[in-house]
Amino acid sequence: MSILERLAEILEPSDLLTEASDTAPYLTDWRKLYRGQALAVVRPRDTGQVSRIVALASEAGISIVPQGGNTGLAGAGVPPSNGNNLVLSLERMNKIRSIDPANYTITVEAGCVLQQVQEAAAKADRLFPLSLSAEGSCRIGGNLSTNAGGIAVLRYGNMRDLALGLEVVLPDGRIWNGLRALRKDNTGYDLKQLFIGAEGTLGVITAAVLKLFPRPRERACAFVAVPSLEATLELLGRLRAASGDSLTSFELIPRVALEMAIAHVPGSFDPFPDPHEAYLLIEMTSSRENSGVTTIAEEALTAAMEAGLITEATIAQNEAQAKALWFLREAIVEAQKAPGACIKHDVAVPVAAVPAFLKEARQAAEAAQPGVLVYAFGHLGDGNIHFNLMQPKGMKPEDFTAQTHRLNRVVHDIVARYHGSISAEHGLGQLRNEEVRRYKPAIEFELMQKIKAALDPKGIMNPGKVL
Amino acid sequence: MSILERLAEILEPSDLLTEASDTAPYLTDWRKLYRGQALAVVRPRDTGQVSRIVALASEAGISIVPQGGNTGLAGAGVPPSNGNNLVLSLERMNKIRSIDPANYTITVEAGCVLQQVQEAAAKADRLFPLSLSAEGSCRIGGNLSTNAGGIAVLRYGNMRDLALGLEVVLPDGRIWNGLRALRKDNTGYDLKQLFIGAEGTLGVITAAVLKLFPRPRERACAFVAVPSLEATLELLGRLRAASGDSLTSFELIPRVALEMAIAHVPGSFDPFPDPHEAYLLIEMTSSRENSGVTTIAEEALTAAMEAGLITEATIAQNEAQAKALWFLREAIVEAQKAPGACIKHDVAVPVAAVPAFLKEARQAAEAAQPGVLVYAFGHLGDGNIHFNLMQPKGMKPEDFTAQTHRLNRVVHDIVARYHGSISAEHGLGQLRNEEVRRYKPAIEFELMQKIKAALDPKGIMNPGKVL
Repeated sequence: MSILERLAEILEPSDLLTEASDTAPYLTDWRKLYRGQALAVVRPRDTGQVSRIVALASEAGISIVPQGGNTGLAGAGVPPSNGNNLVLSLERMNKIRSIDPANYTITVEAGCVLQQVQEAAAKADRLFPLSLSAEGSCRIGGNLSTNAGGIAVLRYGNMRDLALGLEVVLPDGRIWNGLRALRKDNTGYDLKQLFIGAEGTLGVITAAVLKLFPRPRERACAFVAVPSLEATLELLGRLRAASGDSLTSFELIPRVALEMAIAHVPGSFDPFPDPHEAYLLIEMTSSRENSGVTTIAEEALTAAMEAGLITEATIAQNEAQAKALWFLREAIVEAQKAPGACIKHDVAVPVAAVPAFLKEARQAAEAAQPGVLVYAFGHLGDGNIHFNLMQPKGMKPEDFTAQTHRLNRVVHDIVARYHGSISAEHGLGQLRNEEVRRYKPAIEFELMQKIKAALDPKGIMNPGKVL
Repeated sequence: MSILERLAEILEPSDLLTEASDTAPYLTDWRKLYRGQALAVVRPRDTGQVSRIVALASEAGISIVPQGGNTGLAGAGVPPSNGNNLVLSLERMNKIRSIDPANYTITVEAGCVLQQVQEAAAKADRLFPLSLSAEGSCRIGGNLSTNAGGIAVLRYGNMRDLALGLEVVLPDGRIWNGLRALRKDNTGYDLKQLFIGAEGTLGVITAAVLKLFPRPRERACAFVAVPSLEATLELLGRLRAASGDSLTSFELIPRVALEMAIAHVPGSFDPFPDPHEAYLLIEMTSSRENSGVTTIAEEALTAAMEAGLITEATIAQNEAQAKALWFLREAIVEAQKAPGACIKHDVAVPVAAVPAFLKEARQAAEAAQPGVLVYAFGHLGDGNIHFNLMQPKGMKPEDFTAQTHRLNRVVHDIVARYHGSISAEHGLGQLRNEEVRRYKPAIEFELMQKIKAALDPKGIMNPGKVL
């Protein structure tokens, strides 16, 4: 019996896709940077089916490429081009299995869309804090497999910090039920940590127990101009202390990005009459009613202005104003789609090193590619900067794109000097899995290879990614 | 050349102990429950020495037993009795390597005493939040290796959540420098997670980068009586919300423990005129000056009293009163040393299941051992209860202790039914490493064994612990 016939015994016809027109969306990423081939796309409906599919693949020596919302930026969900693999989409496993508000936990299947989990939590008067641009289409399994970050990491941590338990189908098809809902459990190695951030190379995450938090009832949202990047560090410390460590977002927006948004994204606006080199979008939240969080923010920002740490500030006085400020943050991402090529870097350095790093990396990029536009924005509070480079005016996009490898190296070599990371929140996938070898000690790859060989000796799980 | 001669080439004479009188304290735990033998106790002064010692041991087929402050409760730091091993004490590696307040990080050697790290952080106007009874003598390497918990986990997490980077000497003696100070880094498997909580079975942690937080400036500390355990869940939810999720401690103190403290620990007192079945010690903190945290606590507790969730409450009005309330929390631990035997359980269940678990476990323990005194206290906010059993009056201590295995099973079987953990914060060591096999799926041990074999193929790292 062929592999497809055997899969047909496990799956409903509509869950086994083999026609090119059906499989095409699963064989490329949303930016169409990567393209692969597969024997089929399978869309199991429960963990038992995942188990049987993986067992079959293991026996037949066929690779498994797990896929969530296919919103990744590093190509981890796209199959290799050899075609000897199955894309395993988790999209049909999208049930909220249970929610326990008193335990502050929710148990969800890997195919749940992030926004669906946020909404289920809100309905139970709780917060699931992970939040990122793709939240309307990315899925929890992908968030776990890439250890997703986003705009609330400063307060709530990365996806790794939000997971209490996992259910995983191992590379031989067996199911590991580690769906614990415990805050403390020291009974051996913490196995779930292996699968989080492994980009599907050690098994298929099928469900998870996630942490919830009290639902925020009030937020203070401010947009401020800063006199220098150095001033942001002192400001961050003051705001963390003044807010009772309730600072949720501390996002860097450079002037160049704001201008690009105003030029290309309808609805964008300049919050201040005069231009400033750099801005921050700041948010504090409180689960307390009548928390006075806006007053707290106002007082802290007034003091910061007197201390010369900010030059202008506007604080949203209502929800509509807060949304308008956040719209600017989204618009600067959107504005990157303006005509011309863009070379992206998702890097992190210690928070305290961000100003020095940015100065050095900007100079190096401008020296390496005269006329380049440095478009560096993002999660300053986490030390995570999207250090993107836009092509010089008048250059052909393809000529600029041809410089990707060279410019990556210029930027990443500086990241390495600051003991940083060349993939802060997007993962390695097939985008950075070669390049990372230049920066990480060989001993780490050796350890990673040993783990991989121990858990997936046949190497069928998402080959060509991470390692 | 003998192994001791070769060690003498690496170490100062005072760092290589072989005389029985010198080695004795390292060969047993502080409660004298476990005892082992060793060729020598080595006390390296830097990572290079650790590396050479481990390489030598690996070559010679001698085991390494890492030891920190030797305050563990599960015997993980005590060597086996076969004597073919070295106790590797980290106590001489006790330097704070650096502190970076603007990055909210501190880099410390594994032999730093926990309190030393707390103090270094405070001096830099920062908080290192791990806090537990042994903080004056336990060491960071041990805290990491057992993923220590304590009294502030509700807000700040376990030790695992507080570590950003590690330096580890691997079982072949090579040094892995993973001392990253980054909030985000998704460049492959998160290797540090393997060593945290592994109780020294995969390598020797020699240094770590730890997270710091804004230093609390104010605290509200309250002692309340509750009408029922069920009421504590609603109270926990209200206090988390009302405090802006700044609830740091939510500790259960049963009447029986308070009485025992009053009887046996000088300075203990009853905060209320009438007795109550159960009490909570509650603390909220704020890094904000003039935070109004005491007013917030008062308002929330008044509302809770009106809702029938608490029956009496006292809020500390100054630091001396807060210290007096915390003294009671410490006294109930101390009071367990009162005459007679005590059988201890460090268990966790989902927070929402604590009331039902406690009721069922109490009934089962009392049925299994008539006259037993259930002394269940601890970190209710984390679902972590020290479910201890004190011997019936008039019974011989050794007769009660002889029931340990049987009573462990009674309690732990119920923990398992509530999908709990039989070692919430103390680890497995040699105390629970056999017993845990009854409760964890075999597939987890298989995965753990695979990891162990991959990283420590000669099995020289702390044999007989965890696995």
